[in-house]
Formats: sequence, C-alpha cells, structure tokens
Amino acid sequence: MADPRFFQKAGPFTLGELAQLTGATLSDPAAAGKALTDVAPLQDAQAEHLSFLDNKKYASFFKATKAGACFVRPELAADAPAGTVCLTHKNPYKAYAIAAQAFYPQPKPETFRAPSAVIDPAAVIGADCHIGHGAVIGKGVKIGDRSRIGALAVIEDNVEIGADCDIGARVYLTHTVMGNKVRLHPGAVIGRPGFGFAIDPAGYVAVPQLGRVMIGDDVEIGANTTIDRGAGPDTVIGQGTRIDNLVQIGHNVHIGKFCVVVSQTGISGSTQLGDYVMTGGQSGFAGHLKIGAGAKIAAQSGIMRDIPPGGEVMGSPAVPIRQFMRQTAIWSRISLKKGQDET
Amino acid sequence: MADPRFFQKAGPFTLGELAQLTGATLSDPAAAGKALTDVAPLQDAQAEHLSFLDNKKYASFFKATKAGACFVRPELAADAPAGTVCLTHKNPYKAYAIAAQAFYPQPKPETFRAPSAVIDPAAVIGADCHIGHGAVIGKGVKIGDRSRIGALAVIEDNVEIGADCDIGARVYLTHTVMGNKVRLHPGAVIGRPGFGFAIDPAGYVAVPQLGRVMIGDDVEIGANTTIDRGAGPDTVIGQGTRIDNLVQIGHNVHIGKFCVVVSQTGISGSTQLGDYVMTGGQSGFAGHLKIGAGAKIAAQSGIMRDIPPGGEVMGSPAVPIRQFMRQTAIWSRISLKKGQDET
Amino acid sequence: MADPRFFQKAGPFTLGELAQLTGATLSDPAAAGKALTDVAPLQDAQAEHLSFLDNKKYASFFKATKAGACFVRPELAADAPAGTVCLTHKNPYKAYAIAAQAFYPQPKPETFRAPSAVIDPAAVIGADCHIGHGAVIGKGVKIGDRSRIGALAVIEDNVEIGADCDIGARVYLTHTVMGNKVRLHPGAVIGRPGFGFAIDPAGYVAVPQLGRVMIGDDVEIGANTTIDRGAGPDTVIGQGTRIDNLVQIGHNVHIGKFCVVVSQTGISGSTQLGDYVMTGGQSGFAGHLKIGAGAKIAAQSGIMRDIPPGGEVMGSPAVPIRQFMRQTAIWSRISLKKGQDET
Repeated sequence: MADPRFFQKAGPFTLGELAQLTGATLSDPAAAGKALTDVAPLQDAQAEHLSFLDNKKYASFFKATKAGACFVRPELAADAPAGTVCLTHKNPYKAYAIAAQAFYPQPKPETFRAPSAVIDPAAVIGADCHIGHGAVIGKGVKIGDRSRIGALAVIEDNVEIGADCDIGARVYLTHTVMGNKVRLHPGAVIGRPGFGFAIDPAGYVAVPQLGRVMIGDDVEIGANTTIDRGAGPDTVIGQGTRIDNLVQIGHNVHIGKFCVVVSQTGISGSTQLGDYVMTGGQSGFAGHLKIGAGAKIAAQSGIMRDIPPGGEVMGSPAVPIRQFMRQTAIWSRISLKKGQDET
Repeated sequence: MADPRFFQKAGPFTLGELAQLTGATLSDPAAAGKALTDVAPLQDAQAEHLSFLDNKKYASFFKATKAGACFVRPELAADAPAGTVCLTHKNPYKAYAIAAQAFYPQPKPETFRAPSAVIDPAAVIGADCHIGHGAVIGKGVKIGDRSRIGALAVIEDNVEIGADCDIGARVYLTHTVMGNKVRLHPGAVIGRPGFGFAIDPAGYVAVPQLGRVMIGDDVEIGANTTIDRGAGPDTVIGQGTRIDNLVQIGHNVHIGKFCVVVSQTGISGSTQLGDYVMTGGQSGFAGHLKIGAGAKIAAQSGIMRDIPPGGEVMGSPAVPIRQFMRQTAIWSRISLKKGQDET
Repeated sequence: MADPRFFQKAGPFTLGELAQLTGATLSDPAAAGKALTDVAPLQDAQAEHLSFLDNKKYASFFKATKAGACFVRPELAADAPAGTVCLTHKNPYKAYAIAAQAFYPQPKPETFRAPSAVIDPAAVIGADCHIGHGAVIGKGVKIGDRSRIGALAVIEDNVEIGADCDIGARVYLTHTVMGNKVRLHPGAVIGRPGFGFAIDPAGYVAVPQLGRVMIGDDVEIGANTTIDRGAGPDTVIGQGTRIDNLVQIGHNVHIGKFCVVVSQTGISGSTQLGDYVMTGGQSGFAGHLKIGAGAKIAAQSGIMRDIPPGGEVMGSPAVPIRQFMRQTAIWSRISLKKGQDET
C-alpha cells in the first residue's frame, strides 16, 4: 500500500467499474461486483488488490500472485492463478495507469499566493493559481488559470505559461512561451542563452541568442534538465513530448510531438527530431542533424548522421541496430577465440 | 525578428557602419548607405535584414536568401543572389556576432538590492551591483562593482566575486575566488567538497577537501554544472574558458585558458587541460591525466591516457582520430560483408 | 596551507599523537615529539607539514618532498628523503584522511532558525537544528536533532530526515524518508515521480508513482543529482553509499550498502545493485538488471545484462574487463597494420 503520509487513496472500485473505466475485459464476468481497495505489484498484492503484468520478465510473479485481479494481455490470461481475476487488455500497462489514477487521483493545487513570493505588479496571473513560497515572478509574466508555481521558482520577465501547468520548485524560466498542461520538474533551467560564440584567436565573441523556447501542450520536462533558447530561430519542444532528468538540449533544437527523451541525453544545436522519436539514456546527438519520425536511438548511442524515419540505431558512432548486433557478435567470437589461442 | 517581449533592438545601421564595426568588406561599395533594421537567419531574412553564412550545410539557403546583406567568406560571395550585398570576412560568424551585439546590446543590470535578499552586514558589495530577490550573501563575501547576483543565488561566507560578473539565479557558491566578467548560469554548484574519501572495509573515511575553486577573468559556466573544490591544491578554471551545461569537474582539476568544455563532459580529479583544449559533449576524462594545449576531444570520447599538445582523439577508450576513423571503416566492411555472407 | 578565509585549523599535533590517532607506525620513534602544524601535498609541503603518498604516479614527488612527515606504505618508506619521517600504514590515504580531519575539524552547524525560512507549524524539528535562510519546510516534516537544512532548500510535506543530517542549499525533497548522518549536496532533487507512463498511439498515460525514496544512514548524495521515487516499490539507497554529482537514479532502483556511484552515472528503473558495487563515471545501466555485490563497472560502460558478484566489466555494451582489453589490443593491431598497408 502506498504510504498514507505521501499519498491519498480513493476507492474502493468494483471490477466492473475498473473494466469500464479502462476498456478491459473481465475473464470472469461474474466477478464484476467484486470490490478492490488498492493497487500493488504482483509479488506484494493480496486478494483486495489490483495488479498488472506488462514486462514478461515478471511472468513468474504473475503465476504466483495473490492479487484479486490483474491487467494482462489476453494471450497470457491462462497463466493466472485460481484466485486472480484477469482484466485482459492489449495494453495492460496503460489500463493499469488509468486504474491507478482512479485509486490515487492527482491532488489539485490549492489556490494560494505565498506572502513570501515576489510577484511583479505587472504580472498577469489567472484564476485559482498556486504561487509557492519565495517564488519570483517578473514583469509582464502571464500565467494561465489553475497553474501551480512551485516554491522558489524564478520566472523572468514576459515568460508565458498556459493553464493547468505545474512548474516545479526551483525551476528557472526565461525567454519561454509554453502551452497548457506543461509539467516542469524541480531544478530545470529553460531559456538561457546557448553555447553560442565565434571562435577567434583573440578570444571568443558571444553571439546574441535571439530566439525563445517554445513548449507545446502537455509536455513534461525532468529535474535539473537544461534547455537553451534559440540563437535566432526558436528552440521547440513539441506537444506531448516527455523529457527526462538531466537532459541537455541545445539552441535551435526542434523536437517533434510525442517524443521520449530519456535521462542524460544530449542534443546539440539545430538538430531536429521528428515526431515520436525515442532516445535512450546518455545518447548524444551532433548538431544540425535530421532524425526522422519514429526513429529509435539506443542508450549511449552517438549520432553523427541523419537517421531516416523509423530508423533504429545503436553504438558510438551509431549504426543500424542489426549491424551493431552483428559487430558485437563478431567481436565476441574474435576476442574469445584469440583469448583461447593465447592460453 | 526577435520577440520584442524578450529583446530590445537598437539600430538601424548602414552597411558602411556595419562594415567598419566588423572589419568586413562590402562587395558593393555603392551600397554603404543602405540601412538595415535587424538580423535574421538566411531562410527568414528580408531586404531590411542582415544575415550570415558560416556552416556550408546552409549554402543552399544562402543562394535563395532574400537578405539585404550577408556576412560570408570571400570565396563564396559569388553565389549571393542579386538582391543581397555581401559583407565578406574570413570569419563571418565572428563578424555576425559583433553586428548582432550592436543590434541587440546586452541590457546592463539595474542597480538594485532586493528587500528580500539576506545580505550579511559584513559582506562588501561594490558600486552599482544588482542583488536579486531572495539571494543569500554570507559573511565576508566580496562582490566587485557592477556585478549582478541573480534571484535566490546562495553565496557562502568569504567567497570573492570580481567586477562585472553575472551570477545567475539559483547559483550556489562556496570556497570560490573569481576574477572579473565571469558569467555563471542558473543552478551551477561551485566549490563543494569533491568525491574524496579513503576506501576501507569498515566504511569510507572522508578526506577533508582543503582547496578552493579559482576562476579566471571572463570565464563562462553553464547551467546546473558542478565544479568541486580542490582537495589540497585548488581547482582552477583559466581565463576565458567556456564551460557548457551539466558538466562535472572534479577536485584539483586544472583547466587552462580559453578552453571549450561542451555539455555533459566529465573531468575526473587532478586532470590537467592545457590552454585552448576543446572537449566534445559527453566526453569523459579519467583522473590524473595531462591533456596538452590545443588538444581536441571528440564527443563521447573516453580519455584514459595523456594526450600530447594538439592531439585529436575519439572513441572510448580514445585513440587518435585517424585511427578511429580507420577502425570504423574496417568495421563497416567486416560487418556488412559478414551480413551478406549470412544472407 | 588551506586558505584561512575558508578553513579553520586546529593543532599543532606531535608525530606521536598522529601515529596514535591513525594507527600508523613511526619510522623514527625518536621523532615522536616533533610537532607539525598543517597538512600539505608532497610537492608543497615544508618541514612543519604532514603529507601522504598513495597514488604511485606521485612517487617522484615523494622522493623530493620537504615534508616533515609523510604517510606511506611500509614497502615504500625506504625512498623517503632524509628530512621526512615516515608514518607507515597499509592504507596511507585513510590515515591521512583521519589526520587531516584532526587538523581541519568539520565545523558544527550553529543552532539557528532563519527568520526568512517558511516552516509549517505542524513540522517537527529536533534540538539544535540549523534552518537556513529562505528554506521551505512543509506540513508534517520531521527533522532529527542537530541536522542542518541549507538555505533555500525545499522539504515537501511529511518528509522524514534523521539526526545529524546535512541537507545542502537548494536541495529539493519529496516523498523521502532518510536515516541519520545523511549528506545531500546543493541542487539534488529527490523523490519526484519517475519517468513512468504507458505508451499509446493516442499519447502517453501517466502511471501514478506510489513509492518513496528510502535513504539509509551515512549516505552522501552529490550536487544536482536526481533520484526518482519508486513506482510502487520504493527506490532504496543503502547505508554508507556514496553518490557523486549529476547522477540519475530511476524509479524502483535498489542500491545496496557502501556502493560508490561516480559522477554522471545513470541507472534505469528497477535495476538492483548489491553491496559494495562501484560504478565509473558516465556509466549507464539498462532497467531491471541485477548487479552482484562487489561488482566494478568501468567508466562509460553500458550495462545491458546482469553482472555476477565481483564481476568487472567495461565497454558499451559491457563485457568482462579482460575481454575488453583484448578487444582493444586486437583493434590496435588491425587498424595500425591496415593503416601501414594503405600508406
């Protein structure tokens, strides 16, 4: 059970309600009236709990679970233990997500303006906003209705924040315009001038960075991530994109819609990612590249060339993933054989 | 055009003024009186705009540009479209930088002491400084004239900051002495004790970290970058060096003058970089190494040995860049051939 | 000598006192009454200073040192110059650490509650705590005796902090329970929801992250490091573990006791590290892995499979370190030979 100090629980919900809410099918329609009180991982769940099986690595936990009910792909339902009702769904993790949101609804921010916040009189703040302790909000800032500004966040002059946004504690924002439902985690630094200077034997000459950061609706940006503003064009983060912690995004980068950028990725200036691109952790992109829609970049890859739509690459420098796997296999053979020869 | 909410524009300037300011040569001296109102990228520029061509990747944009004038290398000027006057310069990006600084001069910080800032009475703050909201400035801190301390920055006791510095919001400084014109971006953490402990079966024993961080004039340090203070000797960042976001610099590291350290680089303890070293993004250095002046380290390289002055390396572990390219080429042949054989 | 602006020195201490304190043996028992005033690196030390030789790279400095005394392994003592008394110890770095702590004792935080701190009346704060300027401490937070909360730290509701903890400036804590003597460096962000969402063509569905971060006694966590809370199970950091700067730790990760996690490491969700695991800088771990106790991971390694206890690996993807070395050697031969052929 989630620690009640940190989480407020709703429910209980019947299996019928949960099936309807998530679009899942009950393996035993007669169980529709059974009520569950909580969600739990397979190995901890009891008779009153709802669980899920998504990663096949955990199939043995599924076979031994004591969960009252479990979201699972239809083809795996036969493995359920006797006491577990299956809620079959082609995407059990999504179904679980929706059910878990019902059990643990996100608390709405209370309408609040901390007395210690420093809010410029010329800032325009929407209805029902929450402005945390010590937040600093500059001249001409616009904040939409129901948005939450965390404690000690700094919002520089003229930044625009849409409605229903959640700006985490200690976020720094400048030269940024964002849509609605954007979530920024603590410590993110967005909109500073990028690494732009002309190299010259007499020293470096700063190039004024004259663009902005434009953030679409429903974007999420992780803790301590840094996003530089454009140098002339804007830096753009497309609608629905998820960016993890400690990511670096350079000036003029254009990220499409619904991309997933995993932790510690670095994207150099002016590179463009199409929609639905996924980057693994610690991957790095050279500048001025075009990464096609739906491309998948493995963790720690180093991208030095354009990638076509749907391309899947790995390695540093990155190559198509099949080629990488072949290289790795050849390597194993050569180096193990060589090792035997030397013995 | 740069968003007027975020940028204040000067000008217009005539081509004659711009040529004189930057040292460029007008391809059409008769156009010296023509006035331009703004800078713009090649693809967006109109007749009243100034642009530049630096990266050859954008040569096609140059041939099709509607810019009124454009900085370009002399040998490429012939490709300019009819309506575009060329300002030829051997370093067009530098010339553009200087011109763009004229159109968009950096606003000077207003003299200001935020009432919410907590400034120790024994801190010595120079003339015309700007102390942002909620900043915390400790005992014995010295800040030179015209320096700017961002909102919610924390400057611990006895730190010394020179004149004309720009300490970003939420910067944390301790055990640090810096020169003039230093720029620190938000979230940087400088001067904390490094990762120093003796390993012992009974647990780790902390080694007091008794050095400082010494930062030269005109250094720039990126957002959320961390620099540990020395363990006994100091950690040193040489004059004019540029450090990007999310970089980690360990204790006792000595970085020379005018180095460029790109985002997410990590430099382990006691490693020394000579002057003018450039490190690519996500590169990593083992400890106790000597990297010669002018060395160039490719992105994602792993440096495990000393590098001679002017050396250029790539890979993990890093090898001379020509050797790396040869390895990559051999690999492609082997693995592609092998793949065909298997088909 | 450590800069007296930043460090307060104790002493002097006699060699007899230092030998007793550290368990070292005096090479010249007659020198037990000799008093030393400070610690210093080999190359800077003078007759009144104590130094140490640990890394053999610095053996030449040892032979030429002017230090009055030096911690050194017994087998190297014969190389000491005439004026230097040896304090022999099998772990000279540990002995130095203990002696240096005597010369430079960690100042205890003064009991203090900053008037600018925002402390919820329902927070429970122990005796002799130090609450820094502008810190924000939420409802139901518990803080043990003698703990220090740095300036502008944000401690969200119901977080539990043990006794003798040092929470750095600008740390952000939520959904976290920690033991005693925990040290968090500035800018760390701990307890935010991890990167948890179900992927669906219609967009991403957030999965409520219902776990906590549990931090054992005597853990140290570096500046700007991010640790996500568990998704259902908790994220756990075991007793005595040292985590460096800019590290990312995903949800449900379980780190054992006395691990060392070097800067810029990334550990993906649900991966487990046994006790005494050491990870090199910029190493990355895929999710759902088991890393055995005592495993050593080289810098920049990419871990895609489980590692047995005591395993030592390197490379991306990582292989046993001997195999990696062999691969590197083969590569050198192939690519250098090929290069000669081509000449």
